[in-house]
Amino acid sequence: MNVTKVQTNVEAQAIAAKKAAKKVSLLSNEEKNEALHILADTLEKNIQVILNANEKDLQAGREKGYEEAYLDRLALSKERITDFAEGLRQVAELEDPTGKILSNWTLDNGLLVEKVSVPLGVIGMIYEARPNVTVDATGLALKSGNAIILKGGSSALSSNKAIVEVMHEALIETKIPQEAVQFIATTDRVATQQLFTMKEHIDVLIPRGGGSLINAVVNNATVPVLETGVGNCHLYIDVEADVEKALNILVNAKTDRPAVCNALETAIIHKEWLDKNSVALNATFKKHNITVHGDETALRYFPNAVLATEEDWANEYLSLDIAVKTVANIEEAIDHIETYGTKHSEAIITENKDTAKVFMSLVDASALYHNASTRFTDGGALGFGAEIGISTQKLHARGPMGLPALTTVKFLMSGNGQIR
Amino acid sequence: MNVTKVQTNVEAQAIAAKKAAKKVSLLSNEEKNEALHILADTLEKNIQVILNANEKDLQAGREKGYEEAYLDRLALSKERITDFAEGLRQVAELEDPTGKILSNWTLDNGLLVEKVSVPLGVIGMIYEARPNVTVDATGLALKSGNAIILKGGSSALSSNKAIVEVMHEALIETKIPQEAVQFIATTDRVATQQLFTMKEHIDVLIPRGGGSLINAVVNNATVPVLETGVGNCHLYIDVEADVEKALNILVNAKTDRPAVCNALETAIIHKEWLDKNSVALNATFKKHNITVHGDETALRYFPNAVLATEEDWANEYLSLDIAVKTVANIEEAIDHIETYGTKHSEAIITENKDTAKVFMSLVDASALYHNASTRFTDGGALGFGAEIGISTQKLHARGPMGLPALTTVKFLMSGNGQIR
Repeated sequence: MNVTKVQTNVEAQAIAAKKAAKKVSLLSNEEKNEALHILADTLEKNIQVILNANEKDLQAGREKGYEEAYLDRLALSKERITDFAEGLRQVAELEDPTGKILSNWTLDNGLLVEKVSVPLGVIGMIYEARPNVTVDATGLALKSGNAIILKGGSSALSSNKAIVEVMHEALIETKIPQEAVQFIATTDRVATQQLFTMKEHIDVLIPRGGGSLINAVVNNATVPVLETGVGNCHLYIDVEADVEKALNILVNAKTDRPAVCNALETAIIHKEWLDKNSVALNATFKKHNITVHGDETALRYFPNAVLATEEDWANEYLSLDIAVKTVANIEEAIDHIETYGTKHSEAIITENKDTAKVFMSLVDASALYHNASTRFTDGGALGFGAEIGISTQKLHARGPMGLPALTTVKFLMSGNGQIR
Repeated sequence: MNVTKVQTNVEAQAIAAKKAAKKVSLLSNEEKNEALHILADTLEKNIQVILNANEKDLQAGREKGYEEAYLDRLALSKERITDFAEGLRQVAELEDPTGKILSNWTLDNGLLVEKVSVPLGVIGMIYEARPNVTVDATGLALKSGNAIILKGGSSALSSNKAIVEVMHEALIETKIPQEAVQFIATTDRVATQQLFTMKEHIDVLIPRGGGSLINAVVNNATVPVLETGVGNCHLYIDVEADVEKALNILVNAKTDRPAVCNALETAIIHKEWLDKNSVALNATFKKHNITVHGDETALRYFPNAVLATEEDWANEYLSLDIAVKTVANIEEAIDHIETYGTKHSEAIITENKDTAKVFMSLVDASALYHNASTRFTDGGALGFGAEIGISTQKLHARGPMGLPALTTVKFLMSGNGQIR
C-alpha cells in the first residue's frame, strides 16, 4: 500500500490530475475497459481490507450518535463491494462516449468540419457519506477518458481511503496512470474550498448529496458545476384520473424508496376527484403508514391528517410523509409546482390526453410523467446503463446523466490553405 | 412610445420575463417568424429615431475622449440598422430548434420515453458597447422560444433604449408579449449584480465583451453562465509546413480583422523552418505592417522586432502586433499553447498528417485547424446561420453557439400506470 498518492496538497493533486487526464484521453476503449476489469478484480480481492476500514468509520459514527439510516448508507458488506466491482464491469460494456463524430460537413471552400466528442478533462466529485460513489464515479470518469478528483464526506474517510488505495494498486497494472484518480484525504473544509476555484486545473465539479452541500458548491464555485438532485416531486391527480392508476402510482412513488430524490413528496388532487375517491385514498394511506399533511380542504377528508405548513410544501420529506394540496383545476396545480418544485420529476394522472399535453408543455422540469411513477427518473431504469447523477439544471445535461454528460466537443477543421 | 416597459426594478422585470417566457415557449414557429419580420420592418421604419439616440451616445463618447475604434463600434448608420433588420429576417428562415424529439425509446414495461428540445426560459445578456447585440440577441432568444433580459453597456444606453422602444412597439402587433424583451435602463452596477443571483427567474447569463466583464460575471454569478470569447489564438508553423500556406494563413488570421476573438495573436515557429524561410516571413511582416514581439531566437531573424514579455504571450493584442515564439518540436509548441491559450482556436500548418493528428488530439480548444485560418471559428462562416457568441467553456456548448445552444431538454414519459 506504499504506492498510494494520498496527499494533502490539493493544488498539486489537481495539477497531477490534469496531466494524467491527457494520458487517459489518448487510451483506446479496449485499454480503458481492461483497466476497469482490473479495478473490479482488485476490489474483490481486497474486500476484507475495505471492510476493516469501513468498520472504523461505523465505529466513529456510532460514537457520534449518527442515525441508523445514515449508518446504513455508510455500511459496506461483502455483497455491496462485489456489487461495486460488478458495476465497473458493466460500465466497461458500455459504448465509449468519446471519439464520436457527432456531425461533419464541408464548406464551399473545401474546408472539412468535424464535431467530435472528447473527454471533459478533470472531474471534481464532491459527495457525502455513500462510499459507492468513490467507485462508481471513478469508473464512469475513466471510461469517458477523464481524470477524477474525489472529495468524499468525512464520516466515510477511512472507507474511501481504503477503496482508493486498492484502486491505486490496481492501476499499476493498467495503462491508466495512478494520478488520474486523486483522493483528497483530509476533512479540512479549506481543501473543498480550494477545489471550487481551480478553473485552470478542474473542468467541472459535480456535487452529490444534500441541499446544503449542493448549494455550497453552486454558490461558491467558479469552476463550472453540474448541479444534481434535490427532488421535491409532485403527483397531480386530475379530475379525469383513473382511480387504480392513481392509487398504484401514488403508493409506488411515495413508498418504494422514500429517501431517494425521485420519490413523491406532494400529491396535488383535484377537489372533485377527491370528493369521489377519498375513502379509497384514506384506506391506501392507512395501509401504507403514510402520514398526510394537508391543506384545509384535504383535512376534511383525512381525519388523521395534520395541517400542512409552508415547510411541508417547500421541502423533501424523504420519509413516509406526504403533503396533500387540493385544487380546482390544472392551472392551480401547475402554479403550485412552479412555486415549490425543484424541476426534477413531476407527474400527472389523467385519462384526458389533452390535459396531459398541457401539463407536459407547461411544467418546467427535467422529467414529466403521464400515468407513470416518478421513480423512473434514474439512469438505470431508463436504460442509460450507468448514471453519474441526476441534473436539475438546464445547461449541458438535464435529468439522469449517463456517460455522454462527461464529454464535451471539439471542432476539427482540415484544410489545404483556406483563408477567409 | 408611451408603451415601453422601461423600468428600474430589476427583480420585477425578471419576474415578468419568466412569465412571458412561458407564453413565448408555446408559440408556433410561424408565429415566432412572423414576429421577427414585424420587428425587422419596424426597425427599418424607425431608423431616424434610432440614429438620433445614437448621436447622443456618440456625442457623450466624444466628450469623454473615447478612442476612435471604440466610437466606431458604437456608431450606427442607415446601412447598419438595415443589416440588423436583415439579420432578424435571416433568423426567421432558420429551423426552429425547439420541439424536436432528439431521441425516443420504449422500456420493456411499455413506458414511452421521449427526449425533446425545449427553450431555456429566460436569457440574461450582459454586453458592452455594440448596439447590434440588442437586436441580434433578441432575435435569437425569441426564435428559440425564450424571453430575454438585456443589460448593455452604459456608453450605448440611449441607442439601446431607442432600439428596445422600437421593438416593444413592434411586439404589440405580434403574439409575443412585450414583457419577453426586458431592458435594464440604468447604468447602475447594482442592477447588473442583481442579475447575477436571480436563479429563480433567470436560466442563463451570457456575457459578451472584454475579459474583465466576462470574469466579473463568471466569478460572481450563481445563475449558470455561458462563457464567451476571449481568444488568445496560436498558429504553429511546423518544420514540414508549406511556405505559401503558412504565409497566407498567417496574414489572413492576423490582419483580416485584428480586433475579433478568432484573430491570430502568437505565431509559434519551428526553428528549422524559420531558418529557411525568415526572409520571406520578414518581407510579409513588413508588407502588412505587422509588429513582431519575439523571443530571443526570433529577434535574430527579425531586425525590427522587440523582445516579447510575459504580457505578450498571455494577452490578446487585437491589433497588428504579433508575438513570435520559436520551438524545437511540436511538444514545445503544445506546451506553450497549454500555458497561454484560452481554449478558443488553435492552428497547425504542416504537410505531415500524423503531426497534424497529434496536434488535433492533444491541444485542448474549441476549434482546431490543420492548414486553415483561425478566422473560421464563427457561426456565420461555419454555416450555423446565426451566432449568440463563441463559447470558450466545455459544458453545454463549445465553440460557435447557434440556436440549439439556447435550448435545453425535457424527458417526457407516457405510460398507462407503470410503477417501479
